[in-house]
Amino acid sequence: MPGDSIGLMFKVTVWGESHGSSIGAVIEGCPPGVELDVENISEQLKRRKPGGSKFVSGRVEQDNFEILSGVFHGKTTGTPISILIKNQGFNKENYTNISEVFRPGHADYTYQAKYGIRDFYGGGRSSARLTAPIVAAGAIAMQVISSQNSITIQAYVKKIGNIEMNTNWCSVKKSDSLGSSIFFPDKQNEKEILRLLENLKEEGNSIGGIVECVIDNIPAGLGEPLFDKLDGDLAKVMVGLNAVKGFEVGNGFSCVELTGLENNDEPTFVDGDVKTLSNNSGGILGGISNGNPIVFRVAFKATPSISQKQNTIDIKGKKQEISVTGDHDVCVAIRAVPVVEALSAIVVCDHLLRFRGQCGNK
Amino acid sequence: MPGDSIGLMFKVTVWGESHGSSIGAVIEGCPPGVELDVENISEQLKRRKPGGSKFVSGRVEQDNFEILSGVFHGKTTGTPISILIKNQGFNKENYTNISEVFRPGHADYTYQAKYGIRDFYGGGRSSARLTAPIVAAGAIAMQVISSQNSITIQAYVKKIGNIEMNTNWCSVKKSDSLGSSIFFPDKQNEKEILRLLENLKEEGNSIGGIVECVIDNIPAGLGEPLFDKLDGDLAKVMVGLNAVKGFEVGNGFSCVELTGLENNDEPTFVDGDVKTLSNNSGGILGGISNGNPIVFRVAFKATPSISQKQNTIDIKGKKQEISVTGDHDVCVAIRAVPVVEALSAIVVCDHLLRFRGQCGNK
Amino acid sequence: MPGDSIGLMFKVTVWGESHGSSIGAVIEGCPPGVELDVENISEQLKRRKPGGSKFVSGRVEQDNFEILSGVFHGKTTGTPISILIKNQGFNKENYTNISEVFRPGHADYTYQAKYGIRDFYGGGRSSARLTAPIVAAGAIAMQVISSQNSITIQAYVKKIGNIEMNTNWCSVKKSDSLGSSIFFPDKQNEKEILRLLENLKEEGNSIGGIVECVIDNIPAGLGEPLFDKLDGDLAKVMVGLNAVKGFEVGNGFSCVELTGLENNDEPTFVDGDVKTLSNNSGGILGGISNGNPIVFRVAFKATPSISQKQNTIDIKGKKQEISVTGDHDVCVAIRAVPVVEALSAIVVCDHLLRFRGQCGNK
Amino acid sequence: MPGDSIGLMFKVTVWGESHGSSIGAVIEGCPPGVELDVENISEQLKRRKPGGSKFVSGRVEQDNFEILSGVFHGKTTGTPISILIKNQGFNKENYTNISEVFRPGHADYTYQAKYGIRDFYGGGRSSARLTAPIVAAGAIAMQVISSQNSITIQAYVKKIGNIEMNTNWCSVKKSDSLGSSIFFPDKQNEKEILRLLENLKEEGNSIGGIVECVIDNIPAGLGEPLFDKLDGDLAKVMVGLNAVKGFEVGNGFSCVELTGLENNDEPTFVDGDVKTLSNNSGGILGGISNGNPIVFRVAFKATPSISQKQNTIDIKGKKQEISVTGDHDVCVAIRAVPVVEALSAIVVCDHLLRFRGQCGNK
Repeated sequence: MPGDSIGLMFKVTVWGESHGSSIGAVIEGCPPGVELDVENISEQLKRRKPGGSKFVSGRVEQDNFEILSGVFHGKTTGTPISILIKNQGFNKENYTNISEVFRPGHADYTYQAKYGIRDFYGGGRSSARLTAPIVAAGAIAMQVISSQNSITIQAYVKKIGNIEMNTNWCSVKKSDSLGSSIFFPDKQNEKEILRLLENLKEEGNSIGGIVECVIDNIPAGLGEPLFDKLDGDLAKVMVGLNAVKGFEVGNGFSCVELTGLENNDEPTFVDGDVKTLSNNSGGILGGISNGNPIVFRVAFKATPSISQKQNTIDIKGKKQEISVTGDHDVCVAIRAVPVVEALSAIVVCDHLLRFRGQCGNK
Repeated sequence: MPGDSIGLMFKVTVWGESHGSSIGAVIEGCPPGVELDVENISEQLKRRKPGGSKFVSGRVEQDNFEILSGVFHGKTTGTPISILIKNQGFNKENYTNISEVFRPGHADYTYQAKYGIRDFYGGGRSSARLTAPIVAAGAIAMQVISSQNSITIQAYVKKIGNIEMNTNWCSVKKSDSLGSSIFFPDKQNEKEILRLLENLKEEGNSIGGIVECVIDNIPAGLGEPLFDKLDGDLAKVMVGLNAVKGFEVGNGFSCVELTGLENNDEPTFVDGDVKTLSNNSGGILGGISNGNPIVFRVAFKATPSISQKQNTIDIKGKKQEISVTGDHDVCVAIRAVPVVEALSAIVVCDHLLRFRGQCGNK
Repeated sequence: MPGDSIGLMFKVTVWGESHGSSIGAVIEGCPPGVELDVENISEQLKRRKPGGSKFVSGRVEQDNFEILSGVFHGKTTGTPISILIKNQGFNKENYTNISEVFRPGHADYTYQAKYGIRDFYGGGRSSARLTAPIVAAGAIAMQVISSQNSITIQAYVKKIGNIEMNTNWCSVKKSDSLGSSIFFPDKQNEKEILRLLENLKEEGNSIGGIVECVIDNIPAGLGEPLFDKLDGDLAKVMVGLNAVKGFEVGNGFSCVELTGLENNDEPTFVDGDVKTLSNNSGGILGGISNGNPIVFRVAFKATPSISQKQNTIDIKGKKQEISVTGDHDVCVAIRAVPVVEALSAIVVCDHLLRFRGQCGNK
Repeated sequence: MPGDSIGLMFKVTVWGESHGSSIGAVIEGCPPGVELDVENISEQLKRRKPGGSKFVSGRVEQDNFEILSGVFHGKTTGTPISILIKNQGFNKENYTNISEVFRPGHADYTYQAKYGIRDFYGGGRSSARLTAPIVAAGAIAMQVISSQNSITIQAYVKKIGNIEMNTNWCSVKKSDSLGSSIFFPDKQNEKEILRLLENLKEEGNSIGGIVECVIDNIPAGLGEPLFDKLDGDLAKVMVGLNAVKGFEVGNGFSCVELTGLENNDEPTFVDGDVKTLSNNSGGILGGISNGNPIVFRVAFKATPSISQKQNTIDIKGKKQEISVTGDHDVCVAIRAVPVVEALSAIVVCDHLLRFRGQCGNK
């Protein structure tokens, strides 16, 4: 049973492998009549692109995307939008040494175990390269959302290694994170992080990080109980993202130590809308948005691709030593920032259309 | 677009409200010819039942379930299995005071915002009561799994408030957690927790907790990239569970501070199988099981239902004071233990059948 | 992969076997706030019930249905509506002789071949008994439709054996078919049919028939290209119905002999709406409704259950002679009339909600 | 809610418009390790291509397809197979006159009514051009089927206008239909049809036809009750195909005049398998294959695109006269033959994998 899609009303199917001729996405269910800003899609792809910072993979990805269908005279037609992105700027030779050796921390063995065959160049389908069509699809989702709502979605790096931003999510400005080459909205601690990354790059090592995301101005009522809850759907796409090992919403794991009295957010009435005084719930109760900002965090492990020598085995079970060559991210969390935003936009857009189908306009 | 189901090949649809005449589940895709152990389903339901410990809701749930279809002469027929559980032992009068008042931390307002109407008795569809049919369906999923694999699934309470178990997941024995009235496998710290719960119960307050779950003897190759990954699917159902605010797999959020060299698990060959020396990945790489134990943790907030007085508003936006009466769990994480196991079994069973469909037997 | 549901936004899952304790349906995605007319559901169930005419099965089905969830104070809540219908009035002993013998024309062998096990009482899951929950769900779908649109759905028997009604679909009145015990809107030919049925009943034989259905006042724009077209979805549910061997829309198979010039319907403008002068297309072009009445026909084979002796084999391949006892329909097309209406209502309701989700209100 | 896919385990999503830069399909769930015969895909595309016969559209479609993903060293990898076919050889100017005029018998108005916007060039998404990626996907489905089963699928033209083949389905040889430029396996009547088509072409008119399809050597047990029955799924894709107005299986509509005694097929035992002496059921009972050949027929209306003058209206409701220029099929049933085979292969392949998932190997 295939698992290449997210969304039900606004559905994105992603195909391709890292070093095939191209990769792409098919978007189904996009509402008709939305004027597409192609420039904006390009910009989002540029944000994700390796090479923007020296701490992300040096692979030159031009990401010249084409829209092959579903748009007529600049507007969406309601029929599938097919996006194609050419694969360029890679060197297959970097990967011949892994055709029969399992890289530690990578999906080489699991793909082999599942399918009995795998496209090993660049990790094939398990590569973070596949997030490019996700970002393009997310940009379109965001444009659909914006055509009817004032919802905003902003992600940024909250922590790298043990260095965390000093500000709270509610005081992060878009300009703060966009102004940083590592999407880190705290100027002061940024320097320390840059030093850390510099050192790790020299050592041929890598490090983990946390991305935080805030979805604001979202109407109450989005999310489908019992099983397609808004937080459940966000968790699914985020944990499914390359290198992610954890997801939390609102105060997350720290809620464990609080009593009910401490943790409950007090409902109140603001300008005709129900809001809560605090936001421990992270904007979601019973799996449905409550009108407060949705706040969640995603934990990324260190890139497993490091040039330092590691022990492993090959396909025959023989011990091998491996040094993963090629240009790799020192911290994947950085490049994940626009991807987290894109996935959020897809989930929110899908739930807006689902809501409209069952309950009418919102 | 409805969201009442989990699973695609082994699919469970749950219907009902806390205080309706009954609740239930329809299981589709169950393989034919599996001898059902009805006693075992009962036992699982008993474990989830309030009243097992004095720190979970005192509601008397008999949970006499009936299987209405899909079983013939004791064996599954491959057609839908309909499970019905009568709702009993509740007092609707406990809830008349919340018909127009939003309980803090509950889904009262979000259901109202979504549907414009809500069954307020006992929280209606948002009640943890709905986990009873999940547990019954999970027991059947586990029996299907066991008919062909030696997979084991074990959950237990790892932490309540700030008191954590002292043992590591790999040394927890089934008997340790089953022997504890609060499913906590550390005899020493258990006493401290019991004191904490006793105090909170007296105060009319509640507390959060963490449940850990280990899925062992699972074959490599389960999970569907790009979007129906095994960890993504587990995250979705766990985060979608009542009161959950976080999910992590393997070393989870703590991976953030590790370098690639520290975090990568070294592949090795054990008895003809690929395994890893450490298990930071928690048994999943690239969204696919790698044959090591799957280990994940779920963070539960404190039950929002507390008898202490809280400020809130009513449906008209007027300020109100509320004290949530009735018998409520001091710590919902306790009762969630069999539910986490049940949801895990459903996800694993579904992926086993998906694997068999696409790739043949495993 | 289970196939027990129809619809995506308005989704109906049907469970149960002919002679189990009960059968039922779970309706997901029903819009909230619709006042349910329970009496009307009962009436629809009565129309389907054997015993209404002496030419349908004599089994006494009380069809006392219960709504177990999803309705609060008489209104739908937007959450799943679970319907339960008790199985009564049957005699299991009629079926012991078929536990190991395959009835000709029945699904006995195919269920055995698929699942390796089958509930043989009354045909188990393959029984037309399962259309009862479909009729109940269809009645609810129709009420949802009527809460917002003036769409009407009317089916009737058009032909039994070689005796056909003399009137055209556009001049059939609801009262004509409701006034007939066999839902046949042509008083004159009705007598001839009744004689035919009388004779067949005496002989212990049965006969086929055609049901025609007209969906009127349907807005243009319903149906999803490329694969969930409105005619495709109707074809799927109708051909999937017990004993159906053919489906056609508009002029159907007779279109084959017409030229393009003869067959094309001329568009014209009526009261501000686009209509066509003729309706060879049957109200659907490119899989999408065009605002004209949707007209389709469904061909039912003769009930395979006949008391005349037939040759067959048993589960071991040994030749056997069989006479199917019990009360059986002389012509299943009669009892299928409300089922065809119910399935149509479910398909239309689903497409209305799908349309609203993607394109806004209609 | 999008409807651009068929299949659940073997899933094909088709995107594109007639006169966009390209069209394509994404195949998900293809089993890994199948050696792909690319030449065979080309051949199937050539059979569908206009220009093969002078009675199908004269548009020159090169149909040079590319496989962009999912294949590694000539074998399928189990990940999505993306197929791209360039659109060439068309003249957009043929269509400027229909930008605001509704062609009779076409989907121009219904797309406008649904989406409020439409790509009018060549009919956009409603064009039969979209059957090219279906044929490519079907060729791959057939290769997957053949890698494990000896199932054969053969379609041919049974009737055009009022001229029908004189042979029965069970005596049609593959060579007979492949040897005919119009896929008509009856040499004698072929001449008469060719004369008819010649005349219609001169007049600028068109004609309908029936395609019959036989699926042989299919194992018993495929098809999912209650709603994803094998005949229901075939009906859905066939009726959803351009210009189709009817579908029947086995003896189809003619079953109506037969009694149960006449219509029931007698089960018998042949070489260890259950078969039936006659095949009125068309190889399907209760929606599940019974091991006999599956036989069905599909009725195609005459191409609505004719050069003879017709009355119609424009987007403003004003009367217009239209003559549809460009090269168009005299009888679309001809070109539909490989499409019917392709859709059948996709449905069968999907059900084989669904069966394997739930019930094990077949």
